[in-house]
Amino acid sequence: MGAHAYISFLSDYGWTGGYVAACEATIACITPTTRVLHISHEITLGDVRDGGAVLARVAPLGPAAIHLAVVDPGVGSDRGALAVHVARGDYFVGPDNGLLRPAIEALGGVEDAWLLDARTVRAQAHLTPVEPSHTFHGRDVFAPAAALLATGLPPAVLGRALSATALRAAPEPLAEVGPGFARAEVREIDRFGNVALALGLEQLCLRDSHELRLVVEEEDEQEWRSRVVRTFSDLKPGELGILQDSWGRASLALNGASAAELLGARLGSVVRISLEFSADRPA
Amino acid sequence: MGAHAYISFLSDYGWTGGYVAACEATIACITPTTRVLHISHEITLGDVRDGGAVLARVAPLGPAAIHLAVVDPGVGSDRGALAVHVARGDYFVGPDNGLLRPAIEALGGVEDAWLLDARTVRAQAHLTPVEPSHTFHGRDVFAPAAALLATGLPPAVLGRALSATALRAAPEPLAEVGPGFARAEVREIDRFGNVALALGLEQLCLRDSHELRLVVEEEDEQEWRSRVVRTFSDLKPGELGILQDSWGRASLALNGASAAELLGARLGSVVRISLEFSADRPA
Amino acid sequence: MGAHAYISFLSDYGWTGGYVAACEATIACITPTTRVLHISHEITLGDVRDGGAVLARVAPLGPAAIHLAVVDPGVGSDRGALAVHVARGDYFVGPDNGLLRPAIEALGGVEDAWLLDARTVRAQAHLTPVEPSHTFHGRDVFAPAAALLATGLPPAVLGRALSATALRAAPEPLAEVGPGFARAEVREIDRFGNVALALGLEQLCLRDSHELRLVVEEEDEQEWRSRVVRTFSDLKPGELGILQDSWGRASLALNGASAAELLGARLGSVVRISLEFSADRPA
Repeated sequence: MGAHAYISFLSDYGWTGGYVAACEATIACITPTTRVLHISHEITLGDVRDGGAVLARVAPLGPAAIHLAVVDPGVGSDRGALAVHVARGDYFVGPDNGLLRPAIEALGGVEDAWLLDARTVRAQAHLTPVEPSHTFHGRDVFAPAAALLATGLPPAVLGRALSATALRAAPEPLAEVGPGFARAEVREIDRFGNVALALGLEQLCLRDSHELRLVVEEEDEQEWRSRVVRTFSDLKPGELGILQDSWGRASLALNGASAAELLGARLGSVVRISLEFSADRPA
Repeated sequence: MGAHAYISFLSDYGWTGGYVAACEATIACITPTTRVLHISHEITLGDVRDGGAVLARVAPLGPAAIHLAVVDPGVGSDRGALAVHVARGDYFVGPDNGLLRPAIEALGGVEDAWLLDARTVRAQAHLTPVEPSHTFHGRDVFAPAAALLATGLPPAVLGRALSATALRAAPEPLAEVGPGFARAEVREIDRFGNVALALGLEQLCLRDSHELRLVVEEEDEQEWRSRVVRTFSDLKPGELGILQDSWGRASLALNGASAAELLGARLGSVVRISLEFSADRPA
Repeated sequence: MGAHAYISFLSDYGWTGGYVAACEATIACITPTTRVLHISHEITLGDVRDGGAVLARVAPLGPAAIHLAVVDPGVGSDRGALAVHVARGDYFVGPDNGLLRPAIEALGGVEDAWLLDARTVRAQAHLTPVEPSHTFHGRDVFAPAAALLATGLPPAVLGRALSATALRAAPEPLAEVGPGFARAEVREIDRFGNVALALGLEQLCLRDSHELRLVVEEEDEQEWRSRVVRTFSDLKPGELGILQDSWGRASLALNGASAAELLGARLGSVVRISLEFSADRPA
């Protein structure tokens, strides 16, 4: 048994069909006493940036762990399979498509990286056939690799070393700030309908007194008024606020209702924010 | 390590976005070997009564535990944060908005209660910054407090004692029974579409032979016929039954189909039940 | 404590309402240190074949365990309650309605079987009242039975022996293969919208060069063209492929989009596949 608290697990599999459990059962065969902490299996389908953001926010909150993450639209193609070691001691296991990058950076960057060889992983885990399926590398490659690392197996046994600079990155979301305005992509809509932008609230240099105008581009371009608040209950019914969410981002919110529904905003929509004309402009 | 079997965890966060895992990872940092039992994270958004009812039905079935419950529409406002000890030895941790009350009562009532100080909780857990966010006290206050209690830390270290009578209650659901009729609020619609009322079946004083008429108020007031049955398979296809559900309540049900869909009933709808005219009236 | 790695748990309860947790808390009261591995609680409502297929694919991947499975449209009727021992050492606990059969067969068939007596199970688990509810045998009978087996209690204490041949089977899904055509039922639509048929791809005797025509029967009978591919990324945008899914079945798929939505296919739909006329017919 290695020195890791648990295997965390994130995917876009959902809980129907037993795909998550197929991975967890495979892990239990290899390392029966290792706990699995489920981060989320409701990542937007195939959305590497959504998965990467969620992994990056959760991994640093827990103890050093092995993080298994599978959002893998390129499964079965020639995209690489990674194991990455970071300074804190965590390992990340998943496809080389940018998914792991934000969390790796949040934990201090790549210390060592390996390109996993699927057949070697399966042979080390005594899985048959040695050839993985073309459609489910979570079960066939990534979960076994994570489990083997949890037993303390050195990652070099499972593949060849890779330069940190060779890791793929996901495209950056749109976020631009100019004098008196900003444009940013919607990066999350949570269960409450809060609309989080790819922008820290502090980047907007706003003061509480500021009135804002908002437009969701590519919609009907309706203009909405908003103001900066601290929390949901600072808002009157129906009033649209902008607040710093629990990850530091600018987030559009209503009190007890869905801002996403009001605005017609979707993941990937672009929101344009501008200051109301007033004597009181930001410094 | 304290004497509690696990930390149970209930919220309205859903599994998207990693909010549940952010709390679980925070707990694992403080008390790595404590198991977390997930009750539900699909509580109706901000519905303190729904969350309270689910917590009250599950907590007594398990061993003495620490129960972390967060349905918290007032997050970031001045609503209090609670830790409550009950006679059986369980602790409850969550917002002071009525959420914890039904479960506390189901386990014998308040033994001791404390108003948690968020900054003290965070300092004791070595979390920085010491100031919590305004929008996510599950991660920033309640999960750390529950984890600290699981390590055996006395709750008095985390805040000041509170009188049991000071705890807030959630409003009671509508439930009235008169001669030959009853009116009650719909308190749950489960995945199968069963419609559970805020009323024990025994309060209706029905016999198996009774024919009933039902109306969902504020709908089109269509009248439905129903009869008391023991279980789903006692019903013919399309026949609407009323049965005692697994928590003792009167529940409207179909066999293999959704009564909620048939009736157009929603959470909070009021159902009026009356006896068919017949010689056979209840005593 | 017995020799089993964990209790696996599958149901159609969903996560709202705390039904899953009610079972897990009940288990924890009887055997506090036994881990529970959740397979899925999103089985199609009352669909014994869906539940059976998911259980059969996950159980063999993990170590010998106790498998608690509850998809139970006949709850409260006179359908039997089973405990089944298989050669590998696993126990299966659930209703006698065909749900457990595919997994039992995947693990080598029945070694011993018992018909559980609900009152005996509850008495052995010190649960009151000794009479179970009529609507929730997951909590009242099956979870306690699984937990008691996890403690090492011999199943013969909980009921009477049953002949292996007495176990009920679920109806087989439609699957027929003829010269140049096949018809098969849709048995799964996963979160990605892939449409898995009740047919192994190898039963179709296809070669990569084959062009296929597909019709979803009982729909508008529109004809679709398709070809055999290895994985999703082999497909051009909008191109419909047929591939071997991760459980060996023939599955209809798009690259990054939902084949089910395109085709209007639902669980239980029948898909007719025929070869395009060409000189290159299968052997």
